[in-house]
Amino acid sequence: MKIEGAEIDDKRMEEAVKELKKWREKINKELEKEFGTHKQRAEKIHPEGVKVIDYLEDYTMRGGKRVRPALIIAGYKAVGGEEPEKIVPASLSIEALQSYLLIHDDIMDEDELRRGDTTLHKMYEEYHEKEFPDGRAERFGENMGIIVGDIANSFAVAQLIKSDFDCEIKMKALEKFEQIHRHTGYGQVLDVTFNEKGLDDVDEEDVLTVHYLKTSQYTMAGPLELGTIFAEGSEEQRKMLKEYGEKAGKAFQVYDDMLGLYGDEEKLGKPIGSDLEEGKKTLLMVKAYENGNEEQRKKLKETLGKKDVTEEEVREVRRIVKETGSYEYSREMTVKLAEEAKDVLDEEKLDPKIVKFLRGLADYIVTREV
Amino acid sequence: MKIEGAEIDDKRMEEAVKELKKWREKINKELEKEFGTHKQRAEKIHPEGVKVIDYLEDYTMRGGKRVRPALIIAGYKAVGGEEPEKIVPASLSIEALQSYLLIHDDIMDEDELRRGDTTLHKMYEEYHEKEFPDGRAERFGENMGIIVGDIANSFAVAQLIKSDFDCEIKMKALEKFEQIHRHTGYGQVLDVTFNEKGLDDVDEEDVLTVHYLKTSQYTMAGPLELGTIFAEGSEEQRKMLKEYGEKAGKAFQVYDDMLGLYGDEEKLGKPIGSDLEEGKKTLLMVKAYENGNEEQRKKLKETLGKKDVTEEEVREVRRIVKETGSYEYSREMTVKLAEEAKDVLDEEKLDPKIVKFLRGLADYIVTREV
Repeated sequence: MKIEGAEIDDKRMEEAVKELKKWREKINKELEKEFGTHKQRAEKIHPEGVKVIDYLEDYTMRGGKRVRPALIIAGYKAVGGEEPEKIVPASLSIEALQSYLLIHDDIMDEDELRRGDTTLHKMYEEYHEKEFPDGRAERFGENMGIIVGDIANSFAVAQLIKSDFDCEIKMKALEKFEQIHRHTGYGQVLDVTFNEKGLDDVDEEDVLTVHYLKTSQYTMAGPLELGTIFAEGSEEQRKMLKEYGEKAGKAFQVYDDMLGLYGDEEKLGKPIGSDLEEGKKTLLMVKAYENGNEEQRKKLKETLGKKDVTEEEVREVRRIVKETGSYEYSREMTVKLAEEAKDVLDEEKLDPKIVKFLRGLADYIVTREV
Repeated sequence: MKIEGAEIDDKRMEEAVKELKKWREKINKELEKEFGTHKQRAEKIHPEGVKVIDYLEDYTMRGGKRVRPALIIAGYKAVGGEEPEKIVPASLSIEALQSYLLIHDDIMDEDELRRGDTTLHKMYEEYHEKEFPDGRAERFGENMGIIVGDIANSFAVAQLIKSDFDCEIKMKALEKFEQIHRHTGYGQVLDVTFNEKGLDDVDEEDVLTVHYLKTSQYTMAGPLELGTIFAEGSEEQRKMLKEYGEKAGKAFQVYDDMLGLYGDEEKLGKPIGSDLEEGKKTLLMVKAYENGNEEQRKKLKETLGKKDVTEEEVREVRRIVKETGSYEYSREMTVKLAEEAKDVLDEEKLDPKIVKFLRGLADYIVTREV
């Protein structure tokens, strides 16, 4: 998706994406090792325990950009951390948290596909259909999804506990980690609740609170801060990366919602009307409703949360979002936030290579098509 | 329920129950304080976040014996711990874990009642019915139950992190805590899966593995061990309390399943046929099936997992369990385990007052009617 007004350094951005892929490989290698350990332990318990690990490994390894663990590593390096053999294993904690949250999310949204294959609760539903012809396969699938998510969560915390840092450092990291976990939980509570509410009952502040809790904190600022904690960076450094993360995270989410309405269906891998059907209160929708005339508001209300939104209705909503200036409002916000995020970083106070990477990442955030 | 063969010291048992109540009061007072703190923090986020805490507080405070935190305190005192102002707050961690697991359990079992009132996911379902007339209240309720459980879990870990012990002690406690959490998860995986399997596919070893993971570890041995970690007890002391906990925990669970089939429906607060309807693979059922003749096995197979089990069918199953010697097998096991648990404890190596309490508790475990 082409967004106007963003000042993109193409070369820097491409390098950042390449860097991200390099880290992803390292993270994936370490993840595979970890799953091996989990499997060995599960074998001592019961074959059904081994199945838990097999399914979880499949679900985790089949995709994912590993942005969050990569940002832990980036935060660590940005403030002078120099032991990759320590930080890479520690960074897996947030990927385990991610698997756990996605598994629970898939249940809540009743999604059947994740990363191009069956969601975890559906894998267990299929297992039930094959093995136990009598009971309720759907209930069984959801139940196993809840528990396997819970187990993945215990892995996340254990990963921090066993990491090779001093006790005081790990304790600070654990504290930050649980704050991220809690905030994501509250963000999810708000998100699910706002989806049920009407457009009259959700305002811009509500939407931005969800963005702050679920994206700025969880996806960007939190991981970067964790990295600085592991490398014992200064308060000034931590705050600088936090501010970058919060701005870039907000830019990410506002852009993400724009992609959800104006992006390429095929590249996104989901129908373009799905955000609408979900009743998702994006900034685009809330702002269009705020600024719209009676007719426009009526149309937005009718379409949001409706089952089987047609292509014509999507086009209609797109039109209203543009006519009310809501598209422009989101676009401006995204571009401004991405610029501000890049400006926050000071290469005299952080590793210049990482600063370059993070600026490239900010460009990518507002240029990507997926 | 009267069980033959148990050597019960009535006075010691009564004192233990009284002691448990005393600790429960202290734990509850501390829990209320904690919920106050959570609420203050949630107020800064959003009114819907405050509702999370209100519902969670209601669910947690309306009942519960607080056996697990009391056992953390007992383990702590048993090995010489002398700072209640430190251990009581730390002990809340396992009660938060318990609330989280119960909330998720209620969803899995589709239970509407817990501790004499509405389960958490049903509270949210009712909230939806009142506030949002359009969407799917049931789905919303379950979704919120999943998330609020997850948030309670983050509280559990945070409670340990902020407790007032040295870093190394807390790290050991966190490690134990996550082991308990993980084992309980695996136990739940097995439990849910075995409920779906037929009697031909679950044996005594399977049943005892679930007991070990879900009750011995989680309810008894784990909390006691946590207590010894906080008070820096010796390895010998930890192992002694662990062995007591594993035996008493197994006795607890085997007795619990006996109560579920032969207990007093009114006192239990659940229909006596509910374990049967759930398809629960108890030691009673598995052993009766193992020893039964063709006709008895057929009847057991027909009844287990059936909807709407009649009183006549319950009586029939009870008869088969007795005729096959399965009742006697469980009874002997329970009594033997409770005796062994009491014998493991050595008042020269542990605080004699706590030894007395734990022996009284073992008596209570195989005498209680609820």
